[in-house]
Amino acid sequence: MTRNNPGRPVFVLAPDSFKESLSAREVCAAMEAGLRDAFPEATYVHVPMADGGEGTTQSVVDATGGTLHHRTVTGPLGEPVEAFYGIAGDGRTGVIEMASASGLELVPPDRRDPRVTTTYGTGELVRACLDHGVDTLILGIGGSATNDAGAGFAAALGARLLDADGAELPPGGAALARLASIDTSGLDPRLAKVRIDVACDVANPLCGPSGASAIYGPQKGATPPVVVELDAALAHFAAVVARDLGREIAEVPGTGAAGGLGAGLLAFSPATLRSGFEIVVEHTRLHERVAGADVVLTGEGRLDTQTRFGKTPFGVATVAREHGKPVIAIAGSLGAHADELFDQFDAFFPVIGRLCGLPEALADATTNIERTCRSVGRVLALGMLER
Amino acid sequence: MTRNNPGRPVFVLAPDSFKESLSAREVCAAMEAGLRDAFPEATYVHVPMADGGEGTTQSVVDATGGTLHHRTVTGPLGEPVEAFYGIAGDGRTGVIEMASASGLELVPPDRRDPRVTTTYGTGELVRACLDHGVDTLILGIGGSATNDAGAGFAAALGARLLDADGAELPPGGAALARLASIDTSGLDPRLAKVRIDVACDVANPLCGPSGASAIYGPQKGATPPVVVELDAALAHFAAVVARDLGREIAEVPGTGAAGGLGAGLLAFSPATLRSGFEIVVEHTRLHERVAGADVVLTGEGRLDTQTRFGKTPFGVATVAREHGKPVIAIAGSLGAHADELFDQFDAFFPVIGRLCGLPEALADATTNIERTCRSVGRVLALGMLER
Repeated sequence: MTRNNPGRPVFVLAPDSFKESLSAREVCAAMEAGLRDAFPEATYVHVPMADGGEGTTQSVVDATGGTLHHRTVTGPLGEPVEAFYGIAGDGRTGVIEMASASGLELVPPDRRDPRVTTTYGTGELVRACLDHGVDTLILGIGGSATNDAGAGFAAALGARLLDADGAELPPGGAALARLASIDTSGLDPRLAKVRIDVACDVANPLCGPSGASAIYGPQKGATPPVVVELDAALAHFAAVVARDLGREIAEVPGTGAAGGLGAGLLAFSPATLRSGFEIVVEHTRLHERVAGADVVLTGEGRLDTQTRFGKTPFGVATVAREHGKPVIAIAGSLGAHADELFDQFDAFFPVIGRLCGLPEALADATTNIERTCRSVGRVLALGMLER
Repeated sequence: MTRNNPGRPVFVLAPDSFKESLSAREVCAAMEAGLRDAFPEATYVHVPMADGGEGTTQSVVDATGGTLHHRTVTGPLGEPVEAFYGIAGDGRTGVIEMASASGLELVPPDRRDPRVTTTYGTGELVRACLDHGVDTLILGIGGSATNDAGAGFAAALGARLLDADGAELPPGGAALARLASIDTSGLDPRLAKVRIDVACDVANPLCGPSGASAIYGPQKGATPPVVVELDAALAHFAAVVARDLGREIAEVPGTGAAGGLGAGLLAFSPATLRSGFEIVVEHTRLHERVAGADVVLTGEGRLDTQTRFGKTPFGVATVAREHGKPVIAIAGSLGAHADELFDQFDAFFPVIGRLCGLPEALADATTNIERTCRSVGRVLALGMLER
């Protein structure tokens, strides 16, 4: 509590969403509602966060005062699906989650077949963003139903993937085994000029035993023979890309993400694969905001040092430490070995008030966050009062 | 945070026990262990609290540096039971919970019969305390198995309750219907000189529709006919007491507590029926300790404005407010309408970290309290630092 007027501290509220319960923006609102009890005159800077996965679009839109848009696009199996994308407050940055157009959750379990699922809808979202005149795209690529190396995405932007007879390949990764040549003469020229930040937190290469098909294929419905079939098809695709487009993509870490969409993005666009959290930090200007904070609050539905949960709060804590700011985490619940969280946070508080089932806990989230932050604010004020 | 050195605040830790999990002393220890992280040089004053019910002996013993004693006495059904009592640190105050000698939990459900259960063992504990030379007794009378109006207690101290033939009555409330006279010539003379503070938080009279038999008899095994039988027996007892001892006890609020033990205490000793919490406050010198505090912490296994839970924390909060001290509550869990707790406490924190069953929550209590207080201390310190 060093810089600002002690009665009017600046709180930066930078939580992730509470999964299945509240968006990051709603968490910010509940945090402020609680803190205002002790600090009615404080400044509250809402920076809803995400890690490049689910919720990233909403968070960047909310953090920048942008807009959310809906669009009917081609789903993983060719059927129409209602997807969304965001345009950040600057009007020049589009935000896409590929799962909204090409996600595994859009395909019923009994119809999951990564041989035929396509990223075409994701390409349509990219085109929609380009139509807004953006010069930057944030593309979150988690949760895909696809294994097509971004072939569908490329086709939606005007690339033609042809067989030996010069006919366009049907959708899906399996067809890439018959890829004879790639014609990019019709490729949307805007794609070459846009900066694409791909939120990619895996390092898998496109092919091989740690590639897209072997590691992520099974959860999308690939049996072992299908894994082998798709792995060979993607290797063939990479070879044709290298020959026709002059880009060596097969071994780049991260090209195996999202069924090889990482590879397709590198093949057809000036994309960069980056940490999803780092992208969100940049586009929400988190550093600048934390630099002006007295106290940073972050949080997530679950905080756990042992699992992938809590990635965003840990990242926010790192940013806060870089600026010498105290950081308090508000969590739906804690994992095992919670004491290790003291290495990351000045303090952390689970918000569950009672032993109950998950549905009740999710339903109570707003109340619980607000109540917890009200107490946290009051304790913080206790230390500040009458001194 | 007004009086003491900000780096070395005085914390008064005055929790109740966490039922089925930790004694109040153990809660104090966990609280201090957590707070020491941010305040290694603070002063920690442990005042384990209770409300006059279960845990009162342990708390007064712990809060005063007294001793706990075990003694085999006569159980509710005449069988030997291992009971306990405390001698406070001043050596002059005895502490007894009647439930340890005459409690309902000592009687298997299928043998519960308030016609025959006796408070004789409670009387033996009183005698044991008198043997220590105490001049004050604290007597918690919750959880009784008995409905004998303290007849057993009186007999253990030397009173003779006689039938028309001059024979002593057998144990139990039903036999009081045949009470013809009371002979107190053999009554322990020390009983007249000791101050007895009876922790009694109910206002029921001895007899009638809101009396001991009607209200509390059923949970001790009384069927409706037995309730009528016992109510008449106790009314007869009160009449004989009025005639032979000159004391009108039947209508005094609280004489219906503990199967009429309240009445028996008033009949045979200079007892006073008081709020259990007030007694504990007095004997733990809570006011004096809170007066020297910077921050008061209290807590209980459950905090609830809607039920009898949280009685002790609410009382501690009242004391803290009287002295203008901030008070923070640490709770195992919260009841409904938790926001109302902000009327009582500056802040409150449930310690549950995850959705789990009650056994796990109870097993994690020490860790959870320590972790929560560590975070609370760190937030408190945040407000104090660099100012």
